[in-house]
Amino acid sequence: MMGFDHACMARALQLARKGLYSTHPNPRVGCVIARDGQIVGEGWHVRAGEPHAEVHALRQAGEQARGATAYVTLEPCSHHGRTPPCADALVAAGVARVVVAMQDPNPEVAGNGLARLRQAGIEVQTGVLEAEARALNAGFIKRMEQGLPFVRVKLAMSLDGRTAMASGESQWITGPAARAAVQRLRARASVVLTGADTVLADDARLTVRPEELGLDGELTALAMTRPPLRVLVDGRLRVPLDAPFFQAGATLVATCAAATARDRYLEAGHELLAVPGSSGHVDLHKLLAELAGRGANEVLVEAGPRLAGAFAREGLVDEYQLFVAAKFLGSSARPLLELPLARMAEAQALKIVEMRAVGDDWRIIAVPEQRQA
Amino acid sequence: MMGFDHACMARALQLARKGLYSTHPNPRVGCVIARDGQIVGEGWHVRAGEPHAEVHALRQAGEQARGATAYVTLEPCSHHGRTPPCADALVAAGVARVVVAMQDPNPEVAGNGLARLRQAGIEVQTGVLEAEARALNAGFIKRMEQGLPFVRVKLAMSLDGRTAMASGESQWITGPAARAAVQRLRARASVVLTGADTVLADDARLTVRPEELGLDGELTALAMTRPPLRVLVDGRLRVPLDAPFFQAGATLVATCAAATARDRYLEAGHELLAVPGSSGHVDLHKLLAELAGRGANEVLVEAGPRLAGAFAREGLVDEYQLFVAAKFLGSSARPLLELPLARMAEAQALKIVEMRAVGDDWRIIAVPEQRQA
Repeated sequence: MMGFDHACMARALQLARKGLYSTHPNPRVGCVIARDGQIVGEGWHVRAGEPHAEVHALRQAGEQARGATAYVTLEPCSHHGRTPPCADALVAAGVARVVVAMQDPNPEVAGNGLARLRQAGIEVQTGVLEAEARALNAGFIKRMEQGLPFVRVKLAMSLDGRTAMASGESQWITGPAARAAVQRLRARASVVLTGADTVLADDARLTVRPEELGLDGELTALAMTRPPLRVLVDGRLRVPLDAPFFQAGATLVATCAAATARDRYLEAGHELLAVPGSSGHVDLHKLLAELAGRGANEVLVEAGPRLAGAFAREGLVDEYQLFVAAKFLGSSARPLLELPLARMAEAQALKIVEMRAVGDDWRIIAVPEQRQA
Repeated sequence: MMGFDHACMARALQLARKGLYSTHPNPRVGCVIARDGQIVGEGWHVRAGEPHAEVHALRQAGEQARGATAYVTLEPCSHHGRTPPCADALVAAGVARVVVAMQDPNPEVAGNGLARLRQAGIEVQTGVLEAEARALNAGFIKRMEQGLPFVRVKLAMSLDGRTAMASGESQWITGPAARAAVQRLRARASVVLTGADTVLADDARLTVRPEELGLDGELTALAMTRPPLRVLVDGRLRVPLDAPFFQAGATLVATCAAATARDRYLEAGHELLAVPGSSGHVDLHKLLAELAGRGANEVLVEAGPRLAGAFAREGLVDEYQLFVAAKFLGSSARPLLELPLARMAEAQALKIVEMRAVGDDWRIIAVPEQRQA
């Protein structure tokens, strides 16, 4: 039955991925109910506050759920959240066997859901396609396990690792396909984070634009119901409130500046968060912890070399996505990251997990290597 | 019969590729003789001065060549070189039909071979898998058509486009698979060209090392019979004759310095070539023309950012091969190319033709875009 179990879990993961742009702060979860070698129910979690994947699948299966096997990409919940526990629903439906990809890292669940199923006499199996399931919810897992969001840094560079000319002259150096890919990175994130340099230099708004997502109508509509929170790191409050970034909707501003400015931002519809750090720089680790506390699973950093370099220096990056334009900008142009290293031994080791053409450009996905002890 | 023609030409190209490391200054050529849907003879050109592909294939086919079709990756020669004309050999063997991938760009042939075949009543067809055939001999074609070699620039860089630390601290930043790939690039080249900076800083020898090629015994042995000429660009003769580069065998040194040094180099087994340029720099275009005059099809440039940058600035590069190590060396580290550009409009546009994993590293092949008028 191993082949069929895998196929059903692969389908459940495929369903879970439909929630990529809308489930946060919840994890993306899919569920398949199968009986006698046939799928009789399917479901996925759409949005926080709405039914979980299991509930949709059980509804579709109806009476056929009795004696069936349920495949769920994440351990069914055992606690009363905004919806009743899914473990109870599976028991009530008379499911005979439950296969899950991974245990829920949420301390309120953490094995309790599986225990409840077993107590009810249901056969439980875990770990089927676990790596895929973990990858899909890397942000949710990190937040539950470490109290920090998954940090993805997006950078656009020339083939010789440059981002703009020395004069500051800059333009979007990559093409429309890369732009759409970045739009999708924004849409899947809980938070899009940038710095004052970027907002001032480029009039950046960092919004999700439905027509540029390149998704079908259903997913586009879903994505737009859960747009990411836009966060500006502005240690000295240099960005004026009439900047396009602020005009595009409510934001959160992280600063070291005096709290006296708070009311001015509030009046304009924004929140000012004091995160003091050293020498006028926001403490990024504290800021990330605060964002995780507010339910941020994935943070997309779209910033200039200074702020992106600070994330890199402080070891806060989980993944780099480099969009590479097939150009040489030359040796006077601005660097990818402000990351002044003196010795080869300080070099940051990465693992390149993907290089792929995106339109006329290329995307490189790289993750920092575990640091040596 | 189109399918069979293609299959036979594909096989002929496969045979031709066996000469990748040994035919220069000649082109790589393969030949297949087929009759009644069966291959009856195969051959490839091994080394200059030895029989051409057609001769080997005709020998293998023997009497079966009569009435057969010959597939050749390059127009058969019509002139007496170091071997008699292959067009005559095909006529004498009684071949009924000849299919060639491309016309020979050599002005001594340039259609004369095909004309001779047609005069003898042989049916001639051209252009089958021509693009593949041209790619295999891009260097030979460029030399015949423009009097210049094909220039391939190899660079090793970190993911952020850096080659060494600011201090000059440097080490081979890519792994063994990338090293083997570079060895094969050297072996296929007619000339490996470097600069004084590289030879002085790294004690570079730029030799082909049989045990590092990663080729089978036959190809390794062939490659070692035709090692590339090592050329040093040393405008002011800064590299001492006891440097490992000179100790590793005969070389050619291109310089702006006075010809009085010539005897000293000659005595040590090296040739000194005066190629005056401006402000103490060798004129690279003149040097390339001189190398083409000596039969160089492909030149591999393995140099530091200054010399490689000069090739880039002067528009002399046909292909970049970037070996990328998954590391950030940071913003103080040395640039990929010394290429100071002030405006975005001066950026060098490239086309990335391949990105591929090579061991733990990645290889990017990029070619300069045609310049806009």
